[in-house]
Amino acid sequence: MEQVFTELISHPYVSGMVSGIMETGTTMVGSAVMEASDMAETAELASVFTANNIWMMLATALVFIMHLGFASVEAGFTQSKNTVNILYKNTLTIAIGLLTYALIGFSLMYPGEFNGWLGWSGIGLSLPANGLTADYAGGAYTYWTDFLFQGMFAATAATIVSGAVAERIKISGYLLFTLFYVGLIYPIAGSWKWGGGALDSMGFYDFAGSTLVHSVGGWAALAGIWILGPRLGKYDNGKVKDFAGSSVPLATIGVFLLWLGWFGFNGGSVLSADPGATSLVLVTTSLAAASGALGGMIGGKIIFKRLDFGMVLNGILAGLVGITAGADQMGPGAAVIIGIISGMLVVFSAVTLDRFKLDDPVGAVSVHLTCGIFGTLAVGIFGKMASLAQVWIQFKGVLIYGLISFLSAFIIFKIIDLAFGLRVSPEHEKSGMDSHEHGIRGYTIVYDE
Amino acid sequence: MEQVFTELISHPYVSGMVSGIMETGTTMVGSAVMEASDMAETAELASVFTANNIWMMLATALVFIMHLGFASVEAGFTQSKNTVNILYKNTLTIAIGLLTYALIGFSLMYPGEFNGWLGWSGIGLSLPANGLTADYAGGAYTYWTDFLFQGMFAATAATIVSGAVAERIKISGYLLFTLFYVGLIYPIAGSWKWGGGALDSMGFYDFAGSTLVHSVGGWAALAGIWILGPRLGKYDNGKVKDFAGSSVPLATIGVFLLWLGWFGFNGGSVLSADPGATSLVLVTTSLAAASGALGGMIGGKIIFKRLDFGMVLNGILAGLVGITAGADQMGPGAAVIIGIISGMLVVFSAVTLDRFKLDDPVGAVSVHLTCGIFGTLAVGIFGKMASLAQVWIQFKGVLIYGLISFLSAFIIFKIIDLAFGLRVSPEHEKSGMDSHEHGIRGYTIVYDE
Amino acid sequence: MEQVFTELISHPYVSGMVSGIMETGTTMVGSAVMEASDMAETAELASVFTANNIWMMLATALVFIMHLGFASVEAGFTQSKNTVNILYKNTLTIAIGLLTYALIGFSLMYPGEFNGWLGWSGIGLSLPANGLTADYAGGAYTYWTDFLFQGMFAATAATIVSGAVAERIKISGYLLFTLFYVGLIYPIAGSWKWGGGALDSMGFYDFAGSTLVHSVGGWAALAGIWILGPRLGKYDNGKVKDFAGSSVPLATIGVFLLWLGWFGFNGGSVLSADPGATSLVLVTTSLAAASGALGGMIGGKIIFKRLDFGMVLNGILAGLVGITAGADQMGPGAAVIIGIISGMLVVFSAVTLDRFKLDDPVGAVSVHLTCGIFGTLAVGIFGKMASLAQVWIQFKGVLIYGLISFLSAFIIFKIIDLAFGLRVSPEHEKSGMDSHEHGIRGYTIVYDE
Repeated sequence: MEQVFTELISHPYVSGMVSGIMETGTTMVGSAVMEASDMAETAELASVFTANNIWMMLATALVFIMHLGFASVEAGFTQSKNTVNILYKNTLTIAIGLLTYALIGFSLMYPGEFNGWLGWSGIGLSLPANGLTADYAGGAYTYWTDFLFQGMFAATAATIVSGAVAERIKISGYLLFTLFYVGLIYPIAGSWKWGGGALDSMGFYDFAGSTLVHSVGGWAALAGIWILGPRLGKYDNGKVKDFAGSSVPLATIGVFLLWLGWFGFNGGSVLSADPGATSLVLVTTSLAAASGALGGMIGGKIIFKRLDFGMVLNGILAGLVGITAGADQMGPGAAVIIGIISGMLVVFSAVTLDRFKLDDPVGAVSVHLTCGIFGTLAVGIFGKMASLAQVWIQFKGVLIYGLISFLSAFIIFKIIDLAFGLRVSPEHEKSGMDSHEHGIRGYTIVYDE
Repeated sequence: MEQVFTELISHPYVSGMVSGIMETGTTMVGSAVMEASDMAETAELASVFTANNIWMMLATALVFIMHLGFASVEAGFTQSKNTVNILYKNTLTIAIGLLTYALIGFSLMYPGEFNGWLGWSGIGLSLPANGLTADYAGGAYTYWTDFLFQGMFAATAATIVSGAVAERIKISGYLLFTLFYVGLIYPIAGSWKWGGGALDSMGFYDFAGSTLVHSVGGWAALAGIWILGPRLGKYDNGKVKDFAGSSVPLATIGVFLLWLGWFGFNGGSVLSADPGATSLVLVTTSLAAASGALGGMIGGKIIFKRLDFGMVLNGILAGLVGITAGADQMGPGAAVIIGIISGMLVVFSAVTLDRFKLDDPVGAVSVHLTCGIFGTLAVGIFGKMASLAQVWIQFKGVLIYGLISFLSAFIIFKIIDLAFGLRVSPEHEKSGMDSHEHGIRGYTIVYDE
Repeated sequence: MEQVFTELISHPYVSGMVSGIMETGTTMVGSAVMEASDMAETAELASVFTANNIWMMLATALVFIMHLGFASVEAGFTQSKNTVNILYKNTLTIAIGLLTYALIGFSLMYPGEFNGWLGWSGIGLSLPANGLTADYAGGAYTYWTDFLFQGMFAATAATIVSGAVAERIKISGYLLFTLFYVGLIYPIAGSWKWGGGALDSMGFYDFAGSTLVHSVGGWAALAGIWILGPRLGKYDNGKVKDFAGSSVPLATIGVFLLWLGWFGFNGGSVLSADPGATSLVLVTTSLAAASGALGGMIGGKIIFKRLDFGMVLNGILAGLVGITAGADQMGPGAAVIIGIISGMLVVFSAVTLDRFKLDDPVGAVSVHLTCGIFGTLAVGIFGKMASLAQVWIQFKGVLIYGLISFLSAFIIFKIIDLAFGLRVSPEHEKSGMDSHEHGIRGYTIVYDE
């Protein structure tokens, strides 16, 4: 027993946690029971803290891989002449997103006490005094984990935009937009709810971001495709032309990686490793994705009279976006219903957008905006929080986030458009972005000898 | 100390676990030692429960990604004209699999007390009374985690079939088959062993499913390719024709993802985070995969006189299937032997199947059935359980599972065949499934300007 | 309380941990406080052990997937006529690497007490007496986890070489080299620092292997391309010809998987789940990768006057290699600086190598050697360990590892070259490795009907 004890104490992060216990170890027997209870609790706290932190780091890794998921879906669904361009944009999105979030985003989104609309806790990340953050008081895991998990989320909003504006936006314009939207708008809007701001006080509920992430991205995507206009030839002679994506396997890889990543996106949004809550969330998330696939299949069969695989894939994403706002508030039955509705919604939304000549090459607006709105409202319709009052609160939240997101994105895109031009030239668009901006092709499969 | 204590108690899932401690905190000093011991134990139980649950959720995520692995392997190894079709099938397989497992499968497979052959614990998933399942008494992690981990397993059996019957089966027929096989046969057969049924009582051992998952899938694959017959031109003029797969990188991605996923498939089958057991299983699993690659290389060199990469990839899968039944019962040496034998077996099995004109485009029967049988028998030959008596028990288990799987799959396929027709028309097969059923191509790589 | 207690004790690995507590439960009340404290500590130790083991198994899985990352990057960046060959090499590298590491590598690298330069603790892996290793005294997680985590690292060194020597090395020569380099040189060199040998005593610091893994691989890559010479036509008429890689999406998948895997590579190198240390490491790692992308973008713009995506991708890898030696010793600011410098360094290094007609198809030497050296020196320049004395120690370490790595790789390659020939014939090289050695093509995308 003695050796075990020594070994334990020498362990650097346990020792810090339990040092208080040792000091109290000499107190008198009279208070023995309470002391011992305290010790058990303190030790338990250290274990729970470590477990929470492992789960949140795993969730962070899973949300990170969503960026590969988005890159793959978008490159798979767009034309081979623009493949490098899409990948370039999405790769830089996560890079820029993390760096701006470290510099100002995290501080804007979680400012501590603030007026509810705009707060600020200082520039950059600050190494806590003890250097290790193990006794970080503000949460159930470390400051570093907190930053990185939230930072991985932040870049998602811009990545959603990337797919919608693909095949015609100037890369400089897109990157400039990302800088402002991810650096400023996303964290400020996020602070209103997750930072404990005005919409949080209002009772608005958005568990993992149907609105705060997906709609915020979706509204910006809508603003972008409105300003840019459709790709050349998309709506000629009253017909909607399909441009074949470069690789269906690549898009499939992307969707599966997004589903996988959503285990971290939703599972990590529990903000602890609480066994009941995390595992319930994984179940509702997976059932919504699975039923979203069926919804997309049914919707595709009704509208396009074929086994439309694109709609099955987008149906999965639609189900995932739809469940995100209330994944912790539903049982499995509600999750399945939300998934099927979302999967069908995404088909009807895509057709409707085409009717308005709003050209979205990968269906990002239909997945993230349409189903983001539906999922947010669904919190008031299904599950533990269902009530007419909650639907009304959710609706107000949708509206407020819609206003800030669409307007700010519209203004940023418009300014860039006026200042530098947002759209590439028609020749450039026809021959593809890759040859002009990057000088290489996405695929070079030759066997000439 | 006081603040720490308050903080701890306010934590929702710790508070539930330790509430009992508080009540006993006022008892007299005489029983202090025993009380304190109880407290430490209770706190420890909460930590272990949380750790187990994290590990099992991670394992669940890893088994999920195996479905992308299967989709990638099968799409990579089959012709480009059928790529979308394969991906469509595999994507819907996991969707249908999860939904039927939630509706009836989980209940059929784990019915609680039953007669050993057929049990039932009610339709759907039932939210436990306390809503969080944190005090779920039946296991070392939550009810939700239990369901989702098992649900991810369930769809695997059908996914194995998907590859074998590829390039000629009607998609409606495949999906109908999946509905019945994953929804009914897999969970009923599974209950005999993992549900504590008749084969469990018999002493049959199958740690993670060499038989319960892989053979059950493999027998169905065999029934399917028998009824369907070979692809057109496969065995013309006494020669075996190779149809080139669309993408070797895609197949490679698939095999690596399957190896990764197997860390969860086997590692999660420990059903706890027990450090010794889980980590031993990861080692035996990885060594069997590595030596399976060598076995496949050697086998390919002997039979085909070349560095056959397909056989290296299938050798890895063969090693993984081979170790699965006894991954927790072996040391590293036995794992390497099982891997090498499995890797060579898969080559000889593939050649033998071709001799009988059983056309399996991706080698699924050789990987999952042949090596599944070998792995199940190997439990009686190597490691802790080695004995002639055990070999005999394992053999009986293989037989019983072979009978139920092959017969039920044969009957389901036959009924579908008679009712709707199982195979597409020759023209349809020649031009590819994608153009007929889905209206898009898997790859569109063009640079026309 | 009684049932909970019984349930706990019946749990196999908790029971072992706490059995000591029960025996002491009958001692007199006088020592109650100390006893209770012991109990809490012992229980805590079990929890921490389990948590550490989960984190390390997760890290192991993440390092494993880096092998798919390397395979994808290398296959994506090289010509389509050599795709199968690259994938074949990388797949066998991890197989051979794990098997040799189990047989001799682990023993050579962690020999226990030794003279500081060469030690040996016996052949193969040895199952500890209790069979489960749960009470493994030597570390904070199990013996099996320890082996597998280190084994996944080992194969990385050879995988780095694979890309540099691609498109012209005989596969037999490469595999023979791997056998000796991963089996002998890597673990012996590793023992000098991580095994507690001579360089560890000297004060040399390399947290996760900027030198021990990346430079060791990079030096061997340099030796390989020197002996092999450039690919035919690479430097004709004083110009540097670019050979287009087969698939940019594949290379992108690879880089994202490597970034993901680095969470395990660096995060696991903490060798425990210590919340503060692991999460800080994930932050520095991610910020260095993100700023590496920017560095690569800037470097590419300066040198090639275009938005060079290859340099962005290699910039990410450069940032990751650069931060690896000191990921636990820096704050976020230093990580960003190291990332940007590494990202730019990789561009200038690639151009410089071309000037010396050192042909490295994927930029492996620039990423792993150049940035590995820079990252190792950076430990003495930035962060907690910064001092001139430390720079000098780091420099000596770089030199010593450079000598052993380059010389031994050069000798192994030279012997193979003299004995069997290292380079394929010019006809073979022109028509591609795939058709000669493997008999299949990497991509077969045809729609002939």
